[in-house]
Order: sequence, then C-alpha cells, then structure tokens
Amino acid sequence: MKKTLLLLSLIAAPALAGEGKWTPQQVLELDPAWLRAQGLQIPPKKLWDPQRGTGLLAGAVNVGGCTGAFISASGLVITNHHCAFGIIQEHSSPKRDLITDGYLASKREDELPGKGARVQVPRSFKDVTKDVLAAVPAGADDLARYKAIELKQKELVAECEKRPATRCQVATFDGGLNYTLVDAVELADVRLVYAPPRSVGEYGGEEDNWMWPRHTGDFAIIRAYTAPDGTSAPYSDKNVPYKAEFFFPLATEGVKPNDFVMVLGYPGRTYRALLADEMASRQSQVYPRIRDVYGEAIRILEAEGEKDAAGKIAVASQLKSLHNVYKNAGGQLEGLKRGHIVEKQHTAENAVTEWAKKGGAKWADALKAREELLALQGETTKLFEREFLLGSATRLARGPALAATVARLAAEHAKPDLERRPEFMDRELPRLKDRLEREQKNLFLAADKRLLLAFVKRAQALGPNERIAAVDAHFGKTFSEKDVAAKIDAMYAGTKVLTLDERMKMAGETVAQLTARKDPLLAFGLDLAKELDALDDIEDRRDGATLRLRPEWRKAVLAHAGKPVAPDANSTLRVTFAKVQGYSPRDGAIYTPQTTLSGMLAKHTGEEPFDVPEKVSKVAEAKRFGTWMDPRLKDVPVDFLADADTTGGNSGSPTVNGKGQLVGVNFDRVWENVANDFGYNPDVARNVNVDVRYILWMLDQVEDADALLRELGVRKGPPMVRETR
Amino acid sequence: MKKTLLLLSLIAAPALAGEGKWTPQQVLELDPAWLRAQGLQIPPKKLWDPQRGTGLLAGAVNVGGCTGAFISASGLVITNHHCAFGIIQEHSSPKRDLITDGYLASKREDELPGKGARVQVPRSFKDVTKDVLAAVPAGADDLARYKAIELKQKELVAECEKRPATRCQVATFDGGLNYTLVDAVELADVRLVYAPPRSVGEYGGEEDNWMWPRHTGDFAIIRAYTAPDGTSAPYSDKNVPYKAEFFFPLATEGVKPNDFVMVLGYPGRTYRALLADEMASRQSQVYPRIRDVYGEAIRILEAEGEKDAAGKIAVASQLKSLHNVYKNAGGQLEGLKRGHIVEKQHTAENAVTEWAKKGGAKWADALKAREELLALQGETTKLFEREFLLGSATRLARGPALAATVARLAAEHAKPDLERRPEFMDRELPRLKDRLEREQKNLFLAADKRLLLAFVKRAQALGPNERIAAVDAHFGKTFSEKDVAAKIDAMYAGTKVLTLDERMKMAGETVAQLTARKDPLLAFGLDLAKELDALDDIEDRRDGATLRLRPEWRKAVLAHAGKPVAPDANSTLRVTFAKVQGYSPRDGAIYTPQTTLSGMLAKHTGEEPFDVPEKVSKVAEAKRFGTWMDPRLKDVPVDFLADADTTGGNSGSPTVNGKGQLVGVNFDRVWENVANDFGYNPDVARNVNVDVRYILWMLDQVEDADALLRELGVRKGPPMVRETR
Repeated sequence: MKKTLLLLSLIAAPALAGEGKWTPQQVLELDPAWLRAQGLQIPPKKLWDPQRGTGLLAGAVNVGGCTGAFISASGLVITNHHCAFGIIQEHSSPKRDLITDGYLASKREDELPGKGARVQVPRSFKDVTKDVLAAVPAGADDLARYKAIELKQKELVAECEKRPATRCQVATFDGGLNYTLVDAVELADVRLVYAPPRSVGEYGGEEDNWMWPRHTGDFAIIRAYTAPDGTSAPYSDKNVPYKAEFFFPLATEGVKPNDFVMVLGYPGRTYRALLADEMASRQSQVYPRIRDVYGEAIRILEAEGEKDAAGKIAVASQLKSLHNVYKNAGGQLEGLKRGHIVEKQHTAENAVTEWAKKGGAKWADALKAREELLALQGETTKLFEREFLLGSATRLARGPALAATVARLAAEHAKPDLERRPEFMDRELPRLKDRLEREQKNLFLAADKRLLLAFVKRAQALGPNERIAAVDAHFGKTFSEKDVAAKIDAMYAGTKVLTLDERMKMAGETVAQLTARKDPLLAFGLDLAKELDALDDIEDRRDGATLRLRPEWRKAVLAHAGKPVAPDANSTLRVTFAKVQGYSPRDGAIYTPQTTLSGMLAKHTGEEPFDVPEKVSKVAEAKRFGTWMDPRLKDVPVDFLADADTTGGNSGSPTVNGKGQLVGVNFDRVWENVANDFGYNPDVARNVNVDVRYILWMLDQVEDADALLRELGVRKGPPMVRETR
Repeated sequence: MKKTLLLLSLIAAPALAGEGKWTPQQVLELDPAWLRAQGLQIPPKKLWDPQRGTGLLAGAVNVGGCTGAFISASGLVITNHHCAFGIIQEHSSPKRDLITDGYLASKREDELPGKGARVQVPRSFKDVTKDVLAAVPAGADDLARYKAIELKQKELVAECEKRPATRCQVATFDGGLNYTLVDAVELADVRLVYAPPRSVGEYGGEEDNWMWPRHTGDFAIIRAYTAPDGTSAPYSDKNVPYKAEFFFPLATEGVKPNDFVMVLGYPGRTYRALLADEMASRQSQVYPRIRDVYGEAIRILEAEGEKDAAGKIAVASQLKSLHNVYKNAGGQLEGLKRGHIVEKQHTAENAVTEWAKKGGAKWADALKAREELLALQGETTKLFEREFLLGSATRLARGPALAATVARLAAEHAKPDLERRPEFMDRELPRLKDRLEREQKNLFLAADKRLLLAFVKRAQALGPNERIAAVDAHFGKTFSEKDVAAKIDAMYAGTKVLTLDERMKMAGETVAQLTARKDPLLAFGLDLAKELDALDDIEDRRDGATLRLRPEWRKAVLAHAGKPVAPDANSTLRVTFAKVQGYSPRDGAIYTPQTTLSGMLAKHTGEEPFDVPEKVSKVAEAKRFGTWMDPRLKDVPVDFLADADTTGGNSGSPTVNGKGQLVGVNFDRVWENVANDFGYNPDVARNVNVDVRYILWMLDQVEDADALLRELGVRKGPPMVRETR
C-alpha cells in the first residue's frame, strides 16, 4: 500500500500548474513535494482531514450559489458584493439607500438580517457510489435507470436531512463514475455587516464585466448567527455569532506577482469531459442560439424600458442576468474558436481511442460507450431547436413562465414527495414560493408581451416535427403579428397569474382547480407544463443513457492520463492552485496582474458605471494609503489576476496564500478565459480578485471601521502584521 | 563665434528626447554629442547642408499633403497606401479592381500614371523674414498689415515659380518670428508601382484607426518620372525615372525595441505655441462643436446611405474623412483632459511671465503682446458660433459648397492675380477645377439635402448678432422643417450647379453671368460667398494682429527656454528623433512596441475591416517568413511604435535608423497621443509605423516582386544584408 502511494505521488504533479478544480479528497493524492514547490506552506493534511471529511478548505462556504469564506472565529463571512446584493437591496429604500451609499454596522446590534440569506457550511463528504449504482434494477432501460438513480439520491438526501438545519445533496462526478453525499449545516440567520457603495462594489458595471484591467471592489461582509447553544436557528435577537472551526486570517501584506495562491469554492458547471463532438454542438448550436434568442430579448427589454421609467427598473435585474449570459456566450464562442478547443479535444480523444484500441478487450466497453455517446449526440442535435426554444419558455417572458410554474407545481404536488421532480419536492417549496412572490417586482407587462410575441413567432416557424403543441393550440400554426399580438393582449388582460395574491393562491391549488379557473394565460401555462414535463422525460432518458455510458469512457480517459485528473465542476467544494500573474490578451498588448487606486481614479468619469464616491476619491486623491500601499506599486492595489481554474459559482471565493491566509476575494474571469469551461489554457486562464489591501484600505482609511478591523485582527494605527517585503 | 557655438551646444539637448519637430536648420544647432548618444551614426551635416539648403532630409518629399521618401536612385518613392489611394482608385474598375486586389507592375512599362499625382522635392530653404517684414507700411492697421504680408509672400512665390516646374511657398514660423521661402521641384509624372490589397493597406479600417495594437500594411510604392533631360514634365512614354540625389536605402535588419529612429516629413499643424487660454477655447469650443456638427453629419450620411446603395458609395469618401476628424476631435478632448494640457500650459506661461517681469523694460513688449493676444482671444470667443457654422457651410453639404466656390471663383477672378485670395490665384486654378470636377462622383442628393437642412436649422437658431444673412434671405429667420425642406427641394430641383458640364461652365463665368442664370442654389451660393469673403477679412485682420503680437511673446518664451525649441508644425520639412518603444495606455495594461503576422492572423474575421487576403494568409499561416523573421519575435514584424513627435501630414513619412536607412513608414499616432498637437507627453507620445520587414515580406514571399526587390538592393534568395542580431 505504501509503495503504491509512493508511485502515485511520483506521477501526481498535474500537467499544467494552474489547471484543475481539485476535490478536497484529490488534494491528498497530489504530490506534497509538488504542492510545496508551488508555494503551499502548510501540510496538505491541514487543508483536508480525510477521516472527518472536513478541514480548512471547509472554511469556504456556500452562499446561495456563490462562495463565501469565514474570516473570523465569530462567523464573519466575506463574499462578493453581487452575492450579498439581496440583503443590501432588502434594507434599501429611497430614504436610506444602502445600495448607493453602502452600509457599515458599527456594532453587532446594527447588523442587518437578510430574509432569504443562507450560509451552508460543509460538514462531511461521503462516497455513496455503490449505494447509488446498486439501486438500478437489472435490465432497466435508460429512463428507468435515470429514475432509479434519482430516487436513490432523493432517499439519501432525505435520510441525511433528517438532522436539523441540514442541507444535503448527492453530487455526480465524472459523468457518473462517482457519487458523493455532501452534508452541510445550513445557517439561517445571516446579517449584513459591511457593504461598500455600489459604485465601488460594481465599479465598471456591465462595461467592465468579464474584463481586465479592473478596478472593482466586489466584496461585502456578512455574519452568520446561531442559537445560543450553537445550533442553527432562524433570526432572533437572542442569537449569537456562529463559532467557525475553520477560518482564513487576513494576510495584511497582500500578494505580489508570482506569489502562490489557492482559490477555494463551489464552481458550478464545466464541460471538459465532453467528447469533442459534444463540445462542437455547444459551439455550433447552443451558444449561437443563446446569442440570437437572448440578444433579441435584450433588445426588446431595452427598447421598452426606454419608453417607461418604472418598467425599466422592473426589468433591470432580468436584463442584467440576460446581458451576463449573452456576453458569456460571446466569450465562449470567441474562446472556443481562438483556443481551437474542439480540435484539441479531438486530438486528445483520438490519443485515448488509439491507446484503448491497443488495450484489446480491456477497453472495448469504453470504446463502445464513446460510439454510443456520439450516436446520442447525433440524435440530440436533431431535436435541438425545439428543445432550446421550449426550454426558453420559462426563462424569457415572465407571464407564461409563472403560469407554467404554477401548473407544474400543481401536477407535481399531487405525487408523493419522493416521486416528484426534484425542484418541486417539499424541501424546495419555500424557495419556490419565495421566487413566485419576488417575481412580482420584476413584472413589466408591455415588455413581457413583446417577449412572448417573439417566442410565439419563433415557435410557429419551427418545422413540422418540432411543433410546440401549446403554441399551436393557443396561437395557431402560422405567424401573424396582428393576430398573435391581439391574442396575447387578451391573455394578459384576462389573467390573474400576474396578480400577486391570486398567484400565491394558485400555488396551493390542484390542476383541476387551476383548470376550472378558465384563466387564459394559465390555460396556456397548463398546456406548456405538459410539454415541459414530457421534455424533462426526454432529457431524463438521455441522462440515463449518459450516466450509463460516460463513466465507461471516462475510466479509459483517466487510465490513459495516468495521474490525477480533476473532474468537471458540479457545485461541490474545490480548490485550485495558482500564481499571481498577468497575460497577453493579444499581439502587442500585455496585461499586468495588479491595478491601483490611481487607475481607479483615472477611469472615473463621474457617471455610472465609473463614478467613484466622493468619500473614496478624496482619500485616494490625497494618497492617504495608510499601511496598505504596495511597496513596488507605490499605491494601494485594487484588483489582481491569478491563473486559478475558476468558473461561475466561484464568485466570492477566498483567494488565500500558502499559509492559508486571505489575500483576496475572487469575483470574475477575464474575457479571453470564458471558454476555460471547455479546457484550461495557461496563456489566458486568469481569474480576477479584489486585493485584500483594497478591502482593508476601504475599511481603515475610508470607513474608519474600527470594531470590524479589531475583530479581523487588524488594529487601527500600526497594523499587527507589518509589510515584510 | 566659435565660443558661442560651443556654449550653445552645451545647452542644446532638448528637455525630452522624443520632443520636437526640428527644422533642418535646427538640426545643426542641436548638440552633435547628444545626437550621437541618441543613436545618430552619420554626421548631422550629412542630414543637412546649410550652404546648399538641402541634404539627406530632402529625401523626404511632399506627396499631396502626405509625405513620401525616395528609396532608390531611380525615383522610387514609398508612402502610405492611403496617400496613394487616388492613383489606385483611378485605375480601378469592377473588372480590374486594384483597390481590392492591389497592384504590382512587374516591369517599368506597367507602372500606372496618376492624373493628379505630384511629388514635390525640396530644393532649398531661404530666410526671407526681413523682406516680408519690410513690406509692412508704417502705421498699417492689422488688416493692412496682413494684406501687405500676404502680398509680399505672393510676390516672393511668383518670383520663385518663374523657373519651370517649381512650387514655392513662404512658410511662417513661430507665429511670424521667421518667414522662410521654401523652393521645391514639382514632378508631374508619378506612376503606381506597387499597392497591396486594400485589406492589407487598410487592415483594421476605421475600427483600428488611431489605435494600437495595429496590423496595417499602410504602404504603397510609386515612381517619379522626368523628361529624358531630367527636367520635370507631364506624363509621356518618353519620360525616364527621376534621378534622386538623396534616397534612403532599406535597412533589411529592421528595428528592435530601444533602437534610435528619425521620422522625416511634412507635419501639418500643431498648437503648442498657443497661450493656455487659446488652447482652452479649442477644448471648450472648437472640438465639442466639431463632435456636435460633424457627428450629426455622420449620422445623416450613414442613415441615408442605408437607404440607397449607390448613395452609400458616393458619400463613402466624405464619410471617411468626417469620421477621421470626428474621432480626432474626441481624441484631442480626451488627451487635453487626461494630460491636463491647458493647466500645464498655464503653469509654463506663468513661469515665462514671472521671469519676463523681472527682466524689466526688455520684455515689456512681450508681456503687452500676451495681454493683447488674450484680449483678442476673448473677442474671438464671442464670435465663435457664427464663424464655425459659416465655415462649415463649405465642408458639409456639397450643393451650397459647390455653389459658393463657383461664386467666389468668379468674384476673385475679376481681380489681378496677386490681389486674389491665395486659393483662387492662377497657380491654384488647375487644382480647384480638378476638385470641382471630381466632386461629381461624391454627390448623393438625398443626403446632401438633409445636411443642408441641418445647417439651416442651426443657422436659424443663432442669436440676433450672429445671423448668417444668406440663410435668413433664402430660408427665413425661423426654422420650420416642412418649409425649409420644401425650399431646399426647390433649390436642388431648379439648380444646374450639380450638373457636371454646367458647373464647369460656371467655373469660367463672371459674377454677372452667374447672377443672370437665376439658378436658386447658385443664388444662395452667391450670397454665401459674400459672407465667406467678409469672414475671410475678419480672419485676416485677426491674423494681422496675431502676426504682430505673437512674435513678441515667442521671443520671450524662447529666451526663457534658453535652448532650441522646435516651432509648431506648418507643413514644412521637419525631423523628429525617437526610440522604438511601447507604452502603458492605462493602469494594468502595457502595449509592446511590435506586432506580428500571427497577431494579424488572430484578428482575421473574414469580414471587413479584418479580412486578410488569402494570398497573404496562406503564406503567413505556413510561416513562410523568408529572411524577414525577427529573431526575438520568431515572426515577421508588421507594425512598430516609436516616440516620434508627429502629426497629420507625417502620413507616409520615412522612419529611418541612425545610418539613414529606412526601417519603416509612419502612418498614424496612437489614441492617447492625439492631443500631442498641444503638448508632447513622453508617456504616451507614440507614432505607428509599418515595419520595413513586413513590406519586404509582402514583396518577397507574397508578391514575388523580383524586379522591384532587385532595384531595392534586396536580391531574391539570400538577401544582401543578413540579419545581424
């Protein structure tokens, strides 16, 4: 056994230093000497204790789809401004505009509770692959296989969540090669401690999003509370700060170019294990159609918003999210092309195939699985246009989306909990109802009707084998703008789905009750819901096939690699090892890895998104740097780049040095690195972080946040830790 | 005398290495040791022979507002593609599209003559300050002063041009401190030898204009011919190549970062000697109004062009020029603000003022002159809106512009030649008539009428003391879109100004004849012409005052500087000493000084303006570099940056090394350097050059231009000069 480990460690250095979203378990499989050489100064065992299934890495917590990090023993969590935006918004009013002005709780009692805010602290990870696979009955077809696996996952989660304040999930790794039960404590009392003004937290806005050079202070500080006995509890003034077992002290000396850093967090989804042809379909079908359909939606919302100030505010959040997806799709396309990613994957895949063929019978199943996956992709490609459009029915116009959601909820609610689609299970209902309620403030009917019109027009243009029956039934088979617009007007005029009280009532009714309402938009939603349900079955069957096939193929890929390979992101805890460094975005240009206050001031125009608040600019202009000046830059660093391997979900990730101290907060990737989801390119793989010294400069020189700085171990006046470089 | 020279040379190093558009005479006043230290390897005397008033610098020739350079003893001239565009266009037809495909004359007989193309070779420079100033009668007012100076200049030019094929001008330096008679031979038989495809010569188009990184091959090669006896002659098949006394051999080894280079040429106009308040008025009045008025014109031409394909082609050239001016104005504004140029000029001016005050009576006139200039600026500011708009009458809508030109020509032609406005003197008439003819292909009446409508609307909105009488008379005093549009329609329907034959006839008629035509557009033009003439008088009077005052002030400025100061650009021959180097355009970004073929390919989208021709891309993709690879870049360099002090008119300037060999062809400045016209900022003062190795790679590897390469001393196969680095 020892010999095997030794052999493994000899080959356990990954091919590219920055590549790999490693699972905590994998960190222990990497060569400790390599990790030391990279710059890790603490033993890997301190990062992860395999016995307990937890460790320092678990100081990185899940904050509603983002990542956050404990930075004090008393439950302080740092994350991105955009991840804490919900709480900030909740407490903002025209009179007390925390969004614009930011917020600092000068004492504990002033910390502001967030209604829906939750922090999930990972407690343990358990391999449940055998349990899951054993649940598949012999001879099951692909849909049955999928359903059996899904049911087993639900059962494991239900069992796990019997303990109080517990959130669990069964995560699928490597397309089904491994299933892991992730067990986390959910803290339900989360309060806002500090948020910078929006023009700091979002400095550069949409214009700088995905870009470098960057001067954004995208951070906020929240605190998790528990009942006095330390157990999770909803908000109460009796609650006390959460006692964090693992947390990241602040590295007041910051970073410099070539420093080693780790980025910890919950990356959402990547596609590196896809076959080249599967990637090619995302390149040729998915992203172009996103550009097309979402681009049209953006144009509609913007044009309608110009006509109506209130409407403009209502759709601002949807528009921001559409812009983000739209710009991302553009980046994926540019990066896929520029990085020749599909071609590279073809080459890599061919190498495995050739190697496997020489392995004879051993890899026959793997090769066969690959062929079947390719055939499946061929089938899927043919159905793409209909499925993409039908899927978008719940993403664009809010009217049909809300109607279909209410309708699906009714249908699913009639089933026993474990048999429902996961998103309609009892454990999800509070969140679902919360969303149904919150949507009210996003409604802007003039724009919504135009979005629906665009959807109907596209659906009516589909081929004879691609019809969306609900559209045909409610709007006819051929498009006439006048006719469809009139029908939509009538639908919106006659519906109660868009009235908050009525909709919340609907969310408790049966399908029969909903049908009896004879509400025209709801009727459309009920029909749409049936097709969405059927679409889910199609996708479940396809996923059942993939779960059967991909693990076979991945076994060959991993064996061929002969060293640890990080699995694709799946929203579970990962760590990536990186170096602070710039890059060349294109011929003739080099981006340096750090930006400064002077650069922030140079971008200032006085208008959004480049409007530095006066309280910040006056301190920056006066060069009141405190002790936060970088000796080489002769300025306070604002943001920095590293070659960490991140994706969506890593927002708010702690970026820590080799001692496990926080040096920054991750908040974005650079434009050239968007297609990183398909493959790591060391030339352009750069993530963007707020420098801890900018955070400290804000708290110290701008906000004078004495109590907070003391809790963070950074005394006012001379800092406890002097800059050592 | 010798001692004085020595003293001068001790202090004759300019403050900033790259700053200064030096006159040839000034080069000899600069410290030779400093020039050697910069990298000049030939004696300054080889650059300029003060006895003869010519030298190697005169290898840089004037090519119709651009610069060109002799690169062979047999009259080959290299310039920018955009400077040779006229000849290329002249020989292009849908069947033989030289614009798109480029052109290579494989033998002398295939070289294509250019109708209006001229090359002016400087022959001598002579100080005529005393003659000019002596011409001003005692007690003359400012208008009389201006007229007297203008008349003397005309007489000197007329005398100078008595010799055949001679073009002369009296250039004003330092606001009237010095007048120099520039004497040049005009070669009238100029032929196209080589032009790259437009998508090489204009690669990046409007999008990359004023930008870096750049991958544009903005060069073309022409040849000047003379009669067999060596005298200038119009095109004839008997003509022989011009024998160039001075020319720049090609430096086949190219340049590398930090290499010394000189840029020679005819920079047009700069504003560094203006008082701070005069600069401020350009910042607050001129450029914002250019953005406003030209921006509106661009929108009109683009919108109308969308409706009419032929119209779009007709206005393409005007639109390109408007875009250039519009973008330039934006760059001036950004640069003036970013560089705090007005504030810096205030500081510099105050230093001179304080110093002069201490000088007592000696500088009393200088201080008084400054006060008067400031007062004059105050007056001018008040008249700005009317004067700007009236001036734009001949720059935007072609209809009134042509009508007013014909009318002014008639009025001026009635006067003796020496008494006419310079642009209507006999020596200019061939050019003027050529323009009146060529305008025909730029006419697009629908757009033109909308431009005139916009002009009338603006004119009618002027204040009571700013009226344009011609507008009031022909369109009334208040704006009504319907009414004005109807009047414009009637004007364009009833005019013959826009008919080529009729217009050319008008160009030979008297004012009485033109008036008798009762042509409505011409009638408007006749009235406009009177106001334009009056405006010229206002400006002449103002210029007369400036010519009286500015020299006094400049004497103090130059004395205070105590070392050579390069005068503002005035379209005369200058040289700037520079280094190849990149720069930081903003925090977090560095631009490197060289670009490559790979970078050019990376920009390729297959659509204009980024559409590399196949014959180029296939050689570049195959990395067939020939001997033109840069050993450090491992690629053929395409463009490079230097900190040369250039402006408009330097287009096509030879960029030469310390040995006087051509290393590149200047074609642009970077965006951050546009406001360089007001002050040199070494951090961002960068000019953009085509690398000679890209030129040679095109001729050698892409075009196989054997004869041309032999003439250039670059044999096919192993080059004569090996790369030495």
